[in-house]
Amino acid sequence: MPQYRAPVEDTLFLLTDVLGFHARDNLVGFADASPDVIEAVLREGAKLAEEVLAPINRTGDLEGCRRDADGTVRTPTGFKAAYDTYASGGWMGLSVPEAYGGQGLPHTLNTAIQEFASGANLAFGMYPGLTQGAMAALLVHGTEEQKALYLPRMVEGAWTGTMNLTEPHCGTDLGLLKTKAVPNGDGAYSITGTKIFISAGEHDLAENIVHLVLARIEGAPAGTKGISLFVVPKVLVNADGSLGARNGVSCGSLEHKMGIHGNATCVMNYDGATGWLVGQENRGLNAMFVMMNEARLAVGVQGLGQSEVAYQNAAAYAKDRLQGRALTGAKAPDKAADPIIVHPDVRRTLMQIRAFNEAARALMLWTALQADILHRSEDARERQAADDYLGLMTPVVKGVFTDRGFANAVEAQQLLGGHGYIEEWGMSQFVRDARIAMIYEGANGIQAMDLIGRKLPKDGGRAMMTFLGEVQTFLKDHGEDPAMAPFTQPLQAGLNDLQGAVMWLMQNAFAKPDNAGAGATDFMHLFGLVALGYMWARIAKAAQAKHAEAPSPRWESKLTSGRFYMERMLPETALRLARIKAGADSTMALAADAF
Amino acid sequence: MPQYRAPVEDTLFLLTDVLGFHARDNLVGFADASPDVIEAVLREGAKLAEEVLAPINRTGDLEGCRRDADGTVRTPTGFKAAYDTYASGGWMGLSVPEAYGGQGLPHTLNTAIQEFASGANLAFGMYPGLTQGAMAALLVHGTEEQKALYLPRMVEGAWTGTMNLTEPHCGTDLGLLKTKAVPNGDGAYSITGTKIFISAGEHDLAENIVHLVLARIEGAPAGTKGISLFVVPKVLVNADGSLGARNGVSCGSLEHKMGIHGNATCVMNYDGATGWLVGQENRGLNAMFVMMNEARLAVGVQGLGQSEVAYQNAAAYAKDRLQGRALTGAKAPDKAADPIIVHPDVRRTLMQIRAFNEAARALMLWTALQADILHRSEDARERQAADDYLGLMTPVVKGVFTDRGFANAVEAQQLLGGHGYIEEWGMSQFVRDARIAMIYEGANGIQAMDLIGRKLPKDGGRAMMTFLGEVQTFLKDHGEDPAMAPFTQPLQAGLNDLQGAVMWLMQNAFAKPDNAGAGATDFMHLFGLVALGYMWARIAKAAQAKHAEAPSPRWESKLTSGRFYMERMLPETALRLARIKAGADSTMALAADAF
Repeated sequence: MPQYRAPVEDTLFLLTDVLGFHARDNLVGFADASPDVIEAVLREGAKLAEEVLAPINRTGDLEGCRRDADGTVRTPTGFKAAYDTYASGGWMGLSVPEAYGGQGLPHTLNTAIQEFASGANLAFGMYPGLTQGAMAALLVHGTEEQKALYLPRMVEGAWTGTMNLTEPHCGTDLGLLKTKAVPNGDGAYSITGTKIFISAGEHDLAENIVHLVLARIEGAPAGTKGISLFVVPKVLVNADGSLGARNGVSCGSLEHKMGIHGNATCVMNYDGATGWLVGQENRGLNAMFVMMNEARLAVGVQGLGQSEVAYQNAAAYAKDRLQGRALTGAKAPDKAADPIIVHPDVRRTLMQIRAFNEAARALMLWTALQADILHRSEDARERQAADDYLGLMTPVVKGVFTDRGFANAVEAQQLLGGHGYIEEWGMSQFVRDARIAMIYEGANGIQAMDLIGRKLPKDGGRAMMTFLGEVQTFLKDHGEDPAMAPFTQPLQAGLNDLQGAVMWLMQNAFAKPDNAGAGATDFMHLFGLVALGYMWARIAKAAQAKHAEAPSPRWESKLTSGRFYMERMLPETALRLARIKAGADSTMALAADAF
Repeated sequence: MPQYRAPVEDTLFLLTDVLGFHARDNLVGFADASPDVIEAVLREGAKLAEEVLAPINRTGDLEGCRRDADGTVRTPTGFKAAYDTYASGGWMGLSVPEAYGGQGLPHTLNTAIQEFASGANLAFGMYPGLTQGAMAALLVHGTEEQKALYLPRMVEGAWTGTMNLTEPHCGTDLGLLKTKAVPNGDGAYSITGTKIFISAGEHDLAENIVHLVLARIEGAPAGTKGISLFVVPKVLVNADGSLGARNGVSCGSLEHKMGIHGNATCVMNYDGATGWLVGQENRGLNAMFVMMNEARLAVGVQGLGQSEVAYQNAAAYAKDRLQGRALTGAKAPDKAADPIIVHPDVRRTLMQIRAFNEAARALMLWTALQADILHRSEDARERQAADDYLGLMTPVVKGVFTDRGFANAVEAQQLLGGHGYIEEWGMSQFVRDARIAMIYEGANGIQAMDLIGRKLPKDGGRAMMTFLGEVQTFLKDHGEDPAMAPFTQPLQAGLNDLQGAVMWLMQNAFAKPDNAGAGATDFMHLFGLVALGYMWARIAKAAQAKHAEAPSPRWESKLTSGRFYMERMLPETALRLARIKAGADSTMALAADAF
């Protein structure tokens, strides 16, 4: 059976030695997050992931969710007990303000825990993950009354949350959505329509479900400018917070999916369900974007989580499985064959995954820290910079982490040969589960378009210029250090390619937007490669310092992994740039009926 | 429900206009394969694939195979009827010599039909595919008596075939295998041992199953030099060809797999089963390699088949699904939104898949033609060249076609967004089914090692030098033609990268074999990129001629797809070369326990 070990040590190293987390006492809640507290929380979170969530991952896949004739949905055996443990441990509200019952700890810490949960059990992790997203939207756009009514119960885990966007005829293009909201005259609305692909839409983990639903108020403009956001509880909530009557929303059916079987993906029927407006009329998409941005980062984290767990199990297999002899002579002459980890192609695979994982973890935490700065700093300039950074990096974290996360799960599966294809070994599940992360919360092609079409040109390209400047400054600061040359030189080449792509787009995409569209996915990956390369350079700097302090194979391994990234992975920037510069001509030339 | 259309027109164009198939009348059986016959066979094969095999693909996935308590295995509903249609149509023996009841038609034609079957229903296609592989081994290494006893019944489809190599502790490293063969004294052997992952090991499609089994004769040397090949029928065959007693071989259990549910993957228990030696004692691996090489090419074809069917269904969806507007203004202003095929990133995806498929089909047929030359030419020099070519290209076709085939299925799935993840839409099955092709018949890392470690240096590099020379000659012949410049110039760059890699390996891999191992997968893909680029250049030449003859959008589309390949896909050679030249240092530096 596959195992999972949460990367606590690596997370601590990144927070403390690479990202300067503990120097951030100016942020609300960070003073409480002393090194001791951080370490204790991470270790507890690791225990939860390893001992509670991981053991029910495969059984959840096998059993899946079942919908009974009355529309109730049962989650797999063990999910309810695990959920109770999760909720009673206070994990749901880890970074929710204390005013609503949360612990008010940094979101960065919560993000680390999200990685652990996603690695241990993706299907389970989505239930609390969606709840946290819904809380984030209510925190920003809900009325005081709504916050008081819903948040404390959600923090307790008594109620969970969902996001309801997609309809049968529209997912990406929400302007087409048809779900109707009719004012009841008492401030509430009557919601009618069908939503599909609603994760955690119905289940038996909690006594209520708080649906956030996009709908069009009768008479509202067509398109995205006529969409409003509503909170629609599964069970109506009395003014005193007690539960009232069942609302007019139900699960019509469950989808049969490639993976994440333990999560209930529901068709939700709204049949005159009572809902209340969240935020302003016709500004629903804007309000939902709070949840979507949070969710997009969380989905990127899922990609990393699956990449990590797949890596761990492939590495364990590679150290154990005896097959063939090393090219350089037997390494285990006393055995019938060498463990396959002696083979260069096996190592190449493992190195490729770990070199991604370690840098992605850094980028994930660095990005989460920007979210903390945005929400907790008192310095407006710092908040602005964090907001720029988050906008720019969200599609990259979502798109690149999930593309690579899935590809890494596939590569890890490959190391097990035929056993990788057999369900009992668990690698197939990692692949099948990881696959969804490339699709939901905006398919990765949409992330690429968001990056190149919106985030890149926004404010005259300010966010990108700041990023490029930051990396260039790092390179200037460390370019003279010969020990850093194996990192700074390739990073400079990658940065040049990124700058080259930005320049080319400025010159060629305004007049011909298809040139941006045809290069969007390549640009997203080019950016991701450089951002991860930058993380590796920062990690290398910190690891060199640690190694100078107290030499250890741990720091040597770090530096080797970083070197592998620089030599073998970062050079992909040149290919991505070449593709972008090829432009849209051959991509767009065919008539539609030629396909 | 997903659909499949066999690429008959493209196959005809490739055979006739690109590969000079009909100029090959010097080969046995080719004179019978007139253009009319070829076209008729392809159209009948297409009908079979589209109307008989494709309709039971999804039901086969859902239902899977079931093993009853008595060890019998039931294939999914409809498989038996489809198998009867397949067998009675004479498809099994399409290219088997007429002496054994076959039609003696070219293997190239059979390969085209294999693509159709693999695209329509991979799990089904494996049953006849393994039978054809077993027949190939018996044809080359069986005694006259064995051939007369088994082949006619296999050609009829009354009996099927399998290959039994893998054991629980060994797959790649067959030197470790333990299955024992003890002489019975009457020329037969008693076989005892356990084999795993045996595709089509037990089923209800045919009255007998002819197992080809690797085992070690008592007292034989350890390692691969003590392995012999045996034919072990499920039901013993009397001298007159009638069926006798049940042999001591049975299916112990079925594997639960990620995909190809319609194919029975068996644990086979040999319990003193009676078997007969095929080929020489202790030369079993050599004899099995006939079947393995045939099977490796067939598995490459499976990768292409899955890539093609996934492409077709993604393209159909992209033309149908309305979502968003074209960047250059509405293309379907009368509709609520444009079909998503207007979006450049959607087209990029489709172009990438079709640009692979069309060149891969050419390379597949070209390689199959070499097999025909090898087995049917009377010219020893021509046979030698074909043998060189086949040895060199087999790992490339297997490894590259299946890596790309799977990646393409994933990309195609992505175009359906959430629907791609829902089983009913069928894209998930293509991904899950295509996944196995990267693993079985030698995992792709093994293919890469076979290429770089055995095939490349063999005979002083003769095969590779011939290939490089052939492409260089093509470039010399067409380098002055301005219409060909968009193809010849990029191809020259790719060829230079391939030559650069070969040179670097000659200089750096002999002394340090890990440098070859660490670059093996990149070298395989680099080679594949250039081989497919060469195919595109040849296709372009032919398409330009056809277009000059009778202008048609069909030839324009061909040329555009080729240009897309040259601009966006072939440049990957530079990245592959850079990785190879990075050498093994950072790949091999970590201690095993650091993973």
